[in-house]
Amino acid sequence: MSAEPLASWNDGPAKQALLDFAAHAEASVPAGDRIAVFDNDGTLWCEKPAYVQALYLLQRLQEQAADDPELAARPVTQALLEGDLEAAAAQGLGPLAEVLLATDAGVTAEAFAVTAAAWLEHAPHPHFRRPCADLVYAPMLELMALLRDHGFRVFIVTGGGVEFVRAASERLYGVSPDDVVGSAVEVELERRDGRIDLVRTARLLGSPNEGAPKVINIQAHVGRRPIFAAGNSAGDREMLEYATTGTEHPSLAIVVDHDDADREFAYEGKAMTDPSAEAIAETAARAGWTVVSMRDDWARIFPEA
Amino acid sequence: MSAEPLASWNDGPAKQALLDFAAHAEASVPAGDRIAVFDNDGTLWCEKPAYVQALYLLQRLQEQAADDPELAARPVTQALLEGDLEAAAAQGLGPLAEVLLATDAGVTAEAFAVTAAAWLEHAPHPHFRRPCADLVYAPMLELMALLRDHGFRVFIVTGGGVEFVRAASERLYGVSPDDVVGSAVEVELERRDGRIDLVRTARLLGSPNEGAPKVINIQAHVGRRPIFAAGNSAGDREMLEYATTGTEHPSLAIVVDHDDADREFAYEGKAMTDPSAEAIAETAARAGWTVVSMRDDWARIFPEA
Repeated sequence: MSAEPLASWNDGPAKQALLDFAAHAEASVPAGDRIAVFDNDGTLWCEKPAYVQALYLLQRLQEQAADDPELAARPVTQALLEGDLEAAAAQGLGPLAEVLLATDAGVTAEAFAVTAAAWLEHAPHPHFRRPCADLVYAPMLELMALLRDHGFRVFIVTGGGVEFVRAASERLYGVSPDDVVGSAVEVELERRDGRIDLVRTARLLGSPNEGAPKVINIQAHVGRRPIFAAGNSAGDREMLEYATTGTEHPSLAIVVDHDDADREFAYEGKAMTDPSAEAIAETAARAGWTVVSMRDDWARIFPEA
Repeated sequence: MSAEPLASWNDGPAKQALLDFAAHAEASVPAGDRIAVFDNDGTLWCEKPAYVQALYLLQRLQEQAADDPELAARPVTQALLEGDLEAAAAQGLGPLAEVLLATDAGVTAEAFAVTAAAWLEHAPHPHFRRPCADLVYAPMLELMALLRDHGFRVFIVTGGGVEFVRAASERLYGVSPDDVVGSAVEVELERRDGRIDLVRTARLLGSPNEGAPKVINIQAHVGRRPIFAAGNSAGDREMLEYATTGTEHPSLAIVVDHDDADREFAYEGKAMTDPSAEAIAETAARAGWTVVSMRDDWARIFPEA
């Protein structure tokens, strides 16, 4: 642990709640039950003006639409290619996902990981003009370190593509690829040239990993109820409820509030798949979760360049 | 590491191949790619005269059939209740799985884990008259330790129920529950008494984790291709092929051959779901995999009582 835990956090109730929880859990919770889950987009890194994965999609689309008139003619494709990310998002998750899923269909899982990791290292973010891989939240990296120092296992539970996040999870967060849970495409086993490969299809596997599926997938993957959860949108609600109910252990849920228009963006955390869901800030207030104000609680947002 | 690695293994080509591989991998493979996967039934512990999970089912059925005439009247139920495990297995995986899945439907994931773990600690094995939890293969525990000592991450990839194996994976093998991949039932999210719980259904989630699904589920869960795989049946074939093709790293597949009728059982490793599949010994011979003779390569089978 660094000499000062949560060094990028300003003193206040949020920081104190985190320090108290970590110490309390270490003293009272068996090691195997010290499970922490973090949403990714908007919780661990910047998700505006578009999900990082949507930016990746944009580049892949630019490459592919030139050779594929049908793909180029879709409204969501046109919106993306015109750089109108809001219009693309307004098409809804379905059409957006369909195009997203198609971009890497037919590619092996291993080739996709190489492509995604390389893109993340170099692709400039349209607002901050830094590589997307730099736009992780420094205070959240420190929070992950704090929890690990108190014996927690840290998992990422993302609505984004699991293989996309895995491609950089170790590099960005120190999280092993097998500790990432997310949305996934179906893969097919192919025998070719005397070897077995797994090839990506354009079909989503099950539901997007948001809302109740986050809880179900935590069980499928981690096999234990977490006692700490961090999110920033209505799509994290069930995960935060799951971590803070049904356990006799101390538990904590935090919600990252994007209220810093000067240093990042100011917006309400909506769910991808259900924009009409209650704002997560309202749920948090009723449930007594800890709301983290980016403006007030964070002394800095991103790591030094 | 113990003073002598693989202490329960007799000197010979199998033991030497394992020692050489572990050393070679540590010297030449990045840590993140040192992934080992083990089948469970018949590879890590005894699966005869019936899968341990089938023995668990038997006790649950005895409890439940008394109150449920329809359940009691099924042929597979009758065979199991008469202790005719071969007749039950002969009904095929489908009817067996249906009864198996139903035994704990409506139970929370957490309650099931408690029930299964308690049963494993105490339930006597019908042949060896020791608790089922004692019937792990000592040489395989040593092999897991050897691989870990050389920087491997060790995963269990079982055709059995993932939650059943997880209930004892840490205790039996030192494998964290999240490092177990297996067959699964669907769970449903329920809100009750102000809490969120996950409740088991009687529906299998996807396919049984055997054959090609083992490979697909390794990717879904681990996210990387293993370079070491251990199995004992035709249901492990694809997993062993996956680990030993498509990588530039050194790789090794081993097949545990049940050829010791005196100390355990002598039988051919068939797949659960496809009994007509090629015997794994034939596949191993053609592929050049390392066959481990329980009779010749293992100085002892089980840990001391």
